[in-house]
Amino acid sequence: MHGRRVGIIGASSTRFGERYDASLIELAWEAFREAVREANVEPRDIGFTVVSNFGSWSSELLPAVSVSEALGLSAGSLRVEAACSSGSAAVKIAHDVISSGQAEVVLALGVEKMKESPNPSVMELIGRAGNYFWEFENFGLTFPGYYALYATAYMNRYGAREEDLCEVAVKNHHYGSMNERAQFRNRITVEKCMSSQYVAWPLKLYDCSPITDGAAAVILASEDFIRAHGGEATWIRGIGAATGTSNLSRRADFLGLEASRRAASEAYARAGMDPGRAVHSLDVAEVHDCFTIAEVMAYEDLGFAERGRGVELAREHQTYKGGLIPVNLDGGLKAKGHPIAATGESMIAELHHQLLGRVGGERQADIRNGAALAHNVGGTGHYAYVTILSLGREGE
Amino acid sequence: MHGRRVGIIGASSTRFGERYDASLIELAWEAFREAVREANVEPRDIGFTVVSNFGSWSSELLPAVSVSEALGLSAGSLRVEAACSSGSAAVKIAHDVISSGQAEVVLALGVEKMKESPNPSVMELIGRAGNYFWEFENFGLTFPGYYALYATAYMNRYGAREEDLCEVAVKNHHYGSMNERAQFRNRITVEKCMSSQYVAWPLKLYDCSPITDGAAAVILASEDFIRAHGGEATWIRGIGAATGTSNLSRRADFLGLEASRRAASEAYARAGMDPGRAVHSLDVAEVHDCFTIAEVMAYEDLGFAERGRGVELAREHQTYKGGLIPVNLDGGLKAKGHPIAATGESMIAELHHQLLGRVGGERQADIRNGAALAHNVGGTGHYAYVTILSLGREGE
Repeated sequence: MHGRRVGIIGASSTRFGERYDASLIELAWEAFREAVREANVEPRDIGFTVVSNFGSWSSELLPAVSVSEALGLSAGSLRVEAACSSGSAAVKIAHDVISSGQAEVVLALGVEKMKESPNPSVMELIGRAGNYFWEFENFGLTFPGYYALYATAYMNRYGAREEDLCEVAVKNHHYGSMNERAQFRNRITVEKCMSSQYVAWPLKLYDCSPITDGAAAVILASEDFIRAHGGEATWIRGIGAATGTSNLSRRADFLGLEASRRAASEAYARAGMDPGRAVHSLDVAEVHDCFTIAEVMAYEDLGFAERGRGVELAREHQTYKGGLIPVNLDGGLKAKGHPIAATGESMIAELHHQLLGRVGGERQADIRNGAALAHNVGGTGHYAYVTILSLGREGE
Repeated sequence: MHGRRVGIIGASSTRFGERYDASLIELAWEAFREAVREANVEPRDIGFTVVSNFGSWSSELLPAVSVSEALGLSAGSLRVEAACSSGSAAVKIAHDVISSGQAEVVLALGVEKMKESPNPSVMELIGRAGNYFWEFENFGLTFPGYYALYATAYMNRYGAREEDLCEVAVKNHHYGSMNERAQFRNRITVEKCMSSQYVAWPLKLYDCSPITDGAAAVILASEDFIRAHGGEATWIRGIGAATGTSNLSRRADFLGLEASRRAASEAYARAGMDPGRAVHSLDVAEVHDCFTIAEVMAYEDLGFAERGRGVELAREHQTYKGGLIPVNLDGGLKAKGHPIAATGESMIAELHHQLLGRVGGERQADIRNGAALAHNVGGTGHYAYVTILSLGREGE
């Protein structure tokens, strides 16, 4: 690595869910207010702003400008979009702007108002976020359908059962029930999940993440700034990104996401971690569980389990606290909610607080190695971003 | 500056205009094909891809994925949006990704298909790209209306006449007529401009840039890569960016764009140029002439003329070749066309070729100082990006 080291000095997520009480700008402000307070900086300290927003359902076409103004920011800004991984893409860009020396402090802020979508519907708009030309008009597939293809392939090849997928939902609702900002705070059982209605076989209602309003903010700074400024920080150890084919028909298989594997490989290399041993170096992970099958595939794509054995982690409760590696202690996309372009910042905010021991209570992971990983997918592996954080500054 | 130096090794714009002959992806391919040929690299050399696309009029919701696949790129990617300055924002991000050491070669590609917009119309969608909440629903303003406010204020304060604004259009059509890829290749006269119909008084048809399809690509690389790879390059000397208020009612005046002034100041400082003398250090400039009044204000905001005297540059033909500084030798947004998020890359591609003497013919500027500037505005000063290129690697 040639650039400067970059740390996170403040982060926050709003309450996720139905947020008819707040406009897009007000949601942004909610997340920002807490993040600047934790960072102990002023809006004038922020030298660049990256806003992630998918926003096809929004009438506010220049969210980065409207958000900047509401937050009192006048430095350069832009919006980034990488589908459901937009938030991690924003953090990567914020990192690179600082690492290159172009700014000392950068805000990455994701915000999404999905509940007030005009026509076409959110479901149609998300469906278009595959390859519109090849897949939307012709197949009529929307996202539950895409992930159902993965679930059936995985079940067929590896003998996973619907009950195993439900275990992921049960875990994520378990942790969501303890997260006061989660969209769903009800605990569920495998039986309840199994008896929920089918959305796209074999995926049922409880296998699917919801439509969500919310915002999340991450404030990053250069090592120089952090040293001069004082206060605690977590550090960006490595980021990996990859782009997959937009045509599902060209995927080699439906058993995992190739883009996730490539992004993870790059992130581990940059962080100086052995991919085969990484799971033992991480204290906690956030993975992209837009559907329960996605979390199982992520276990394998990230090297937490061998191919075909991710389902065992779910079955054996190895991704609860006390298991091999705790995953989605905030409830994940499934229970915390999934405001498309704010999800990445929300994952990274959670890990920042986990590493610093600021989550507290039953959701707090044991921090031994001082390292954590966020895995954020756009589309069905159209994009993948993997971000590794650590308490120490070591690394490449 | 802490990061690595970054150069441009290849760039291209497609033919701009009505491009019903090509899809969004085919336009992207046209621009990319020429840029990789000039850069003499392979798709596999590209370590990150930044796609700029406004795209509210597009059914392809993940343009960065679809474009990456069509171009044979599988590295990380994302889309950036900064309204009409999206293209310059993409080049800034590409620069920072390389400068930080995260990649050696990065593609910034802008593409826009505006002619096939569904409802709502392109004009309405562009109109929303102010502050939707405060200005679109309430005022019903679209962009010619916004810039007419600037034109009337400027005319009133500084005694500019409609004929003076028309001089900008005459110049840009003059150079557009020599650019085989320009949307408009007809030369016009002040009389013809003056007799064209009013769009929003005092702006007439010939004061306005058109609705355009097109794409442009810029391939950037690290100094290490360029030295090892060989071939000619131009260098990023400095980039400035600023965000202005999204509420026109909060602008201090309507005589210039504060964001442009701040972005220019930052770019000059990074390039080590004295703002008051910069016009004498630059061989050629591209400025954001979405309307003729915008080019006049840009002369002042960039320090080419004092406040209130930009109109004299137009009146005295000082921005033709042989004058104080040649501006928009490719025809500008006015005549070359303005495919929103591709305009920035197109400006920077033009300057890259100007500095290397590859434009040739009557449009080729005299290159003496080896420096050039691109000024790209989003909205009505909601965003501003200023990019300074040079033939040498000197700078900060």
